[in-house]
Amino acid sequence: MNNTVNIQLAHRSIRNWKQDAVSEEIISTLYDVANRTSSSTAMQHYSIIRVKDPKKRAEIAEVCGQDYVKQAPEFFLFVVDCFRNYSIMKEMGENLESARDMDRFFQGFTDGAIACQNVVVAIESLGLGAVYFGSVLNDTKRIIEILGLPELTFPIVGLGFGYPNQDPALKPRMQGDLKFFEDGYKVQDSYLESIKTYDAELKTYYDLRNDKKPVDAFSDQVMQRLKNPMQKRSKMLNVVKDQGFVFGLDD
Amino acid sequence: MNNTVNIQLAHRSIRNWKQDAVSEEIISTLYDVANRTSSSTAMQHYSIIRVKDPKKRAEIAEVCGQDYVKQAPEFFLFVVDCFRNYSIMKEMGENLESARDMDRFFQGFTDGAIACQNVVVAIESLGLGAVYFGSVLNDTKRIIEILGLPELTFPIVGLGFGYPNQDPALKPRMQGDLKFFEDGYKVQDSYLESIKTYDAELKTYYDLRNDKKPVDAFSDQVMQRLKNPMQKRSKMLNVVKDQGFVFGLDD
Repeated sequence: MNNTVNIQLAHRSIRNWKQDAVSEEIISTLYDVANRTSSSTAMQHYSIIRVKDPKKRAEIAEVCGQDYVKQAPEFFLFVVDCFRNYSIMKEMGENLESARDMDRFFQGFTDGAIACQNVVVAIESLGLGAVYFGSVLNDTKRIIEILGLPELTFPIVGLGFGYPNQDPALKPRMQGDLKFFEDGYKVQDSYLESIKTYDAELKTYYDLRNDKKPVDAFSDQVMQRLKNPMQKRSKMLNVVKDQGFVFGLDD
Repeated sequence: MNNTVNIQLAHRSIRNWKQDAVSEEIISTLYDVANRTSSSTAMQHYSIIRVKDPKKRAEIAEVCGQDYVKQAPEFFLFVVDCFRNYSIMKEMGENLESARDMDRFFQGFTDGAIACQNVVVAIESLGLGAVYFGSVLNDTKRIIEILGLPELTFPIVGLGFGYPNQDPALKPRMQGDLKFFEDGYKVQDSYLESIKTYDAELKTYYDLRNDKKPVDAFSDQVMQRLKNPMQKRSKMLNVVKDQGFVFGLDD
């Protein structure tokens, strides 16, 4: 297709990096790319926190349960940030409850997530490799503490990156007819039947985090995940509330 | 930097397209790019609905309050999709409540949002132009109806794209020192002071949707948005609940 698309189609998560530093010029480019990303009604309801301090990195690694948070040459945390515009409003002499509503929250969540993916593409185009850390949500209260996040902010996702020191295989993905639909949602007659080929394909894939045996079938992984829910993550709306957001629930 | 980054730094939302059709080869590439995007614990908790049917497009345009939803040569809706894995679990003889938790929901929201941005970069690299429709959230209940979204799914964002028929100026963005921090959140002494230059800069920018006068200062736009909250959007968690998700709230 073209070079950009080829880079996108070659995406693998990188979890092991060379010790080479990422230049400040690159960091600055990545900020520019984030900043140029679309933003809901141009309100720019997100922020990025670059974590360099080894102590804070170690604390975040503990939340994530992933030691390589510490080893990543760079680590960005993307956060919902409705505090900035709230502060502008306050300085302008208002105190509107709407600054706390879930419309704002979800705008920020989308703004931050898409800025992060834009940064990932830039990273990969520059010959670096990245990994998402959804695991920052394991304990959002603790992440808020570690990084001093004020009210009306909330962690979305972490991103570790640097120069790759591994070359993982492309991870198989579920075929498109199960996820890409036309003009309406298409419920399958049998999901286990539809997923058979993918289940089989995954069983030939080796994850470098455990390269002694191939990964489980997708259906088995789904069951495994559902049987082991993460308590704090499943209850994270409580922390969203503690951060000052108002849910607007009917009952 | 490189071609990919240059494309990213030249991003503008495109809201007016040539009538030229987007080839099925390109659509298929965009699906491949979406499919290759990172996904939380590889669970792939999102789906895309491509809306071609003019009647459904018109209905969506009404929700969005944006007529150009109808004119976009292509329209994708990205949705949280926890229904697929829930269905796999059910067929495997289980009925675990965890399939409905907010951890799953936010995984899907992030998965879908980042897949969407990956698609946006691919679109722009191919010489096409796109616009996000956050406005699909104006009435999520109605969007669910129009596209027959089953339980445990939820709209994230819409995307219109095609070959550009306009050439908008780059929209100014808030400077980085207000959004990109190091090792912790940095609260400003005065936001109005910090935002002065950006406020002034925005007042020189013309939005092609209304090119008779430049846009307002950022601080005025913030106030404008907060004074006019969107009722259904601010209460959208009710619809999330109606879709079968369980919040896990403490009280």
